[in-house]
Amino acid sequence: MDARTAISELVIANRLVAHLRLVDSFGHVTVRNPENSQRFFMSRSRAPGLVTKEDILEFDLDSAPVDLRGFSPYKERYIHGCIYKARPDVAAVCHNHAHELLPLAVTKTPMRPALHSAAVIGHHVPVWDIRDEFGDTDLLVTSNAMGESLAHALGDGRAALMRGHGSVIAAQSLPDVVFTAFYLRLNAEVLIKAMSMGKEITYLSAGEVDRSGELHRQPLSQGRAWEDWCAQAGVAKLPQ
Amino acid sequence: MDARTAISELVIANRLVAHLRLVDSFGHVTVRNPENSQRFFMSRSRAPGLVTKEDILEFDLDSAPVDLRGFSPYKERYIHGCIYKARPDVAAVCHNHAHELLPLAVTKTPMRPALHSAAVIGHHVPVWDIRDEFGDTDLLVTSNAMGESLAHALGDGRAALMRGHGSVIAAQSLPDVVFTAFYLRLNAEVLIKAMSMGKEITYLSAGEVDRSGELHRQPLSQGRAWEDWCAQAGVAKLPQ
Amino acid sequence: MDARTAISELVIANRLVAHLRLVDSFGHVTVRNPENSQRFFMSRSRAPGLVTKEDILEFDLDSAPVDLRGFSPYKERYIHGCIYKARPDVAAVCHNHAHELLPLAVTKTPMRPALHSAAVIGHHVPVWDIRDEFGDTDLLVTSNAMGESLAHALGDGRAALMRGHGSVIAAQSLPDVVFTAFYLRLNAEVLIKAMSMGKEITYLSAGEVDRSGELHRQPLSQGRAWEDWCAQAGVAKLPQ
Amino acid sequence: MDARTAISELVIANRLVAHLRLVDSFGHVTVRNPENSQRFFMSRSRAPGLVTKEDILEFDLDSAPVDLRGFSPYKERYIHGCIYKARPDVAAVCHNHAHELLPLAVTKTPMRPALHSAAVIGHHVPVWDIRDEFGDTDLLVTSNAMGESLAHALGDGRAALMRGHGSVIAAQSLPDVVFTAFYLRLNAEVLIKAMSMGKEITYLSAGEVDRSGELHRQPLSQGRAWEDWCAQAGVAKLPQ
Repeated sequence: MDARTAISELVIANRLVAHLRLVDSFGHVTVRNPENSQRFFMSRSRAPGLVTKEDILEFDLDSAPVDLRGFSPYKERYIHGCIYKARPDVAAVCHNHAHELLPLAVTKTPMRPALHSAAVIGHHVPVWDIRDEFGDTDLLVTSNAMGESLAHALGDGRAALMRGHGSVIAAQSLPDVVFTAFYLRLNAEVLIKAMSMGKEITYLSAGEVDRSGELHRQPLSQGRAWEDWCAQAGVAKLPQ
Repeated sequence: MDARTAISELVIANRLVAHLRLVDSFGHVTVRNPENSQRFFMSRSRAPGLVTKEDILEFDLDSAPVDLRGFSPYKERYIHGCIYKARPDVAAVCHNHAHELLPLAVTKTPMRPALHSAAVIGHHVPVWDIRDEFGDTDLLVTSNAMGESLAHALGDGRAALMRGHGSVIAAQSLPDVVFTAFYLRLNAEVLIKAMSMGKEITYLSAGEVDRSGELHRQPLSQGRAWEDWCAQAGVAKLPQ
Repeated sequence: MDARTAISELVIANRLVAHLRLVDSFGHVTVRNPENSQRFFMSRSRAPGLVTKEDILEFDLDSAPVDLRGFSPYKERYIHGCIYKARPDVAAVCHNHAHELLPLAVTKTPMRPALHSAAVIGHHVPVWDIRDEFGDTDLLVTSNAMGESLAHALGDGRAALMRGHGSVIAAQSLPDVVFTAFYLRLNAEVLIKAMSMGKEITYLSAGEVDRSGELHRQPLSQGRAWEDWCAQAGVAKLPQ
Repeated sequence: MDARTAISELVIANRLVAHLRLVDSFGHVTVRNPENSQRFFMSRSRAPGLVTKEDILEFDLDSAPVDLRGFSPYKERYIHGCIYKARPDVAAVCHNHAHELLPLAVTKTPMRPALHSAAVIGHHVPVWDIRDEFGDTDLLVTSNAMGESLAHALGDGRAALMRGHGSVIAAQSLPDVVFTAFYLRLNAEVLIKAMSMGKEITYLSAGEVDRSGELHRQPLSQGRAWEDWCAQAGVAKLPQ
C-alpha cells in the first residue's frame, strides 16, 4: 500500500468510526505512513464524521507536524506518536470514547474477552489512570511524557482503557483497528450487563483467545465487516 | 414452494435479519431445498445485509458445497448441515450473535420463555459450550463433529445458546426462523433487565408455552410480522 | 368530531404508535365511534405501521364486526369492546407490548408514576394475570369473559399491565391514548433502571399525580406532542 | 453578536437538542439578548424540533412577554428569567427531560462528573425538589417564586436536577449550553450503569474538574461538536 492509498483508507476509517458511533465529535483514528515508518497520518482537529482527504496531516513519531497548512492539530496526537514509536508492529491506532464502554473506564475495571469476536482485544485490557503519574490534569494526553506512559501501560497489548476518559486500540491495519474498536465496545457492553445481572462470567480461555483472535485478525473476517460497514455508511470501499 | 422461490425468500430473510440487527456483519440464515431434502441453500461468506440471489450456494447435509462457483463458503456451514440431518422437521436455520442476548451466552444462563410471543423458542433453551467436548478452539463450528455436538444439545428444541458466541434457531420456514430469532432476543433482553432489577420472574407455564407457541407459529401471526418487516426494510415480499 | 374524522385520526394514531415503537408488528389502537357510542373503530389484523383508511372496520361493544369486508379481525378485539362497555368515559384504547415495559410485566411489578409527565397513567397501574382466572391459555384476550376480567382489573384507572404479555391504556381521545402509552413506557424504563441501581425511588405524591395528570391531559400539552410526532413520522395532522 | 444572530443561533440550538434527543416534545432552550441584558429570547410553546425564527419571542427577566403576537408562551419560562436575573454571567439556559438522566431525578441522586468531557457540569449537580417548598404541585415551574427557588438551588453551578421532572443547565453561550446538556446526560448514563454493576466509581478530582472543565468550555472543543451536530441534523451553521 502506498501513502496515497493509506490516506484514502484513513478517510474511510474516520467515516466508519463515526457511523458506528465508536466516536462522537471527539476521538481519532490514524495510520502509519506505509512509505515512511517514522511518520503517521491523522486528520486536523475535526469531528471524525466530517473528515475529508484535505484534512489529513502528517506527523513524525514525536507527534510534531510535518506541515500544518494552517490547521489546528488534535491535542492528543501524542497518543498515536508514542504508540507508533514503542510498537513497530502497529500500523493503525484509534483513540475513542465509545459511550458504552465508559462504565468500565470510570470504575477502573480491566477487561478480558468473553466473546469469540472480541478475542482481537487480546488477553488483557488494562486501565491506565493519568492521575497516577501526572496528578490533576485535564485528562488529555498532551505531551510525549504522557503518551509514553500510556504506551507503557498498553505494553504489547491491543487495547487499554483510560480512566474517566475512554480507550486506545493498537492494531495491524485500519480495518483491524476499526474491527477491534467495535468488538472492544461490544465486549464491554456484554460484560456490563452480565455484571448487573449478578451472574458469573465465563471468559474465553487463554487458548481460545489465541485461536479466536488469530481467526478474527484475518482479512476474510475483517474484510467482511469492512465491506458491510462501508455499505451501511454509504462510502465506497477501496478496490482490493 | 419450489427451489427458485426458496432462494428468493432466503435473500429476503438475509435482508430482514440484517435490518432487524439480529446479525451484525456475521451470522447466517439458511433454508432446506424444498425440491431435495438432502440439500440446503446458504449465501457465500458475506455480511447478510449485502446478500443477493447471485450469492446463494447449495450444500449437501455434510455441508459440502455442490458448486462453489469460485466463492468462499461460510466456515460454520456445519451448524446448518448437521441440524438439517438430525432434524427432518426443520426447514430453516439461523445462526446469529444478536448483541442483546450475549449476556446470557457469556454467563451460561439457559432460558425459558416469559413472553407469550417468545413461546416459539420452546420450553427450554440450553447453553452449548464447545469447550466441553472440543477444548480450546476458535469457538467456530467448523466440522461435522462440532455441528453434531451442537445439534445434539439442541435436541428436539427450537433454539440453543452458544457460550461466548451466540445462538442457533431451528424452525419450520424462513418466516418462522426470523420470527423466532426476533423473539428469542426480546425474551433475552427482558430477562436480563428483570434479573438486574433483582425481581422474581414469572415464566410461562408449560401449558402456556404449548398454546402460545402454537398460536405464534401460525401464518396469521408470522405473516403479519413478515409483511411489516419487509415494508420497514424496503424489500418486496413474495406474492403469496 | 364525526366518524369520518375519527377514522382519519385513527390511521394517524396507528402510524404514530408504530413510529414511536410503542408497538412492534403487534398491538392495536382503537377509537369509539363519536356518532354511535355503542360502536368502535379498529383496523383489520395488520401491523399498525401499515394501516390505511381502507383497513378500518367497525365493531359493536361485544366486539362483533359490523362488516368484515372479507378481512381478518384482530383476535384480541375483546380488550377494546369490554373496556368501552365498562367505561363510558373512555374514547380510545391502546393495547401494546412496548418492549421496554415488559420487564415489569414478567415480574408482576405494579407501577406508580415517578415522572410528572407520566402522571397521566393514574395513581396505580395494576398487573392483570390471565392465568389467575383462565388457567393455561395462549395469553391472548379472545373472549368477552377475558375482556371483562381485564376491564375489571383496570377498574376506573388509565392503564394496566398484563403478565407475560404487555399493557392496555384507556383514555379520553386518540392523542390522549398515544401520549399515555408513551409516558407509561418512559415511566417503566426509568423505574427499571432505578431499581437496577438499588436506589430508593421518590414517587409522585397523590396530589402531584392529580395536578400533573390534569395538566398533561390538556390539549396544550398533548397537542404539542401530537404535532411533534406527526412531523417526525411524516404524516399530515388533521386540521384543528 | 447582535440580537438577530442570537435568534438564528437559538433556532439552530432548538433543532440540535431535538436531534440529539436531549428533549422530546417538551423542554426548552433560551438565550439572553446580547443587545439588552435584561431580556431573553425563547420560542413560543412548541416542540423544539419544530421551532423556526417566527416562533421566537422576547421576555423580560420577570419572564413577562414583550409581545406575544398571539402565541402561547411556555408555562415554565420562569426557569429562564429567574436564572438570568440571579446569574449575570449566564447567557444561555436549557431545561430538559432527557430520558436517560431521569433515573437520577427520581432517586434524588446528586451527580459529580466522572468523565473528562462532563467536567463542564461543574463540581456538583444538586437535586432540587419543588415539593420541599411548594408542596403538592403539577411539578412545573410556573411562577417567579418557584423559579427563584430553583435558581437558588443551582447557586453558582452549571446544572441542577429536578426531582421527578428533569434538569436545568446554565451556560455561557448556546453552544456551551447544548454541549453541557449533552455531557450531563452522558455522565448520568455512565453513572447509572456503573451503579447497576455495583462497582466503585472514581470521580474526577476537584483539580481535574477545574482543568478539564476549562478545556471543554473553549471554542476549539465546543465548536468541533457544534459543527458535527449541525452536519448530522442537516442545519446550516452560522458563519463564524
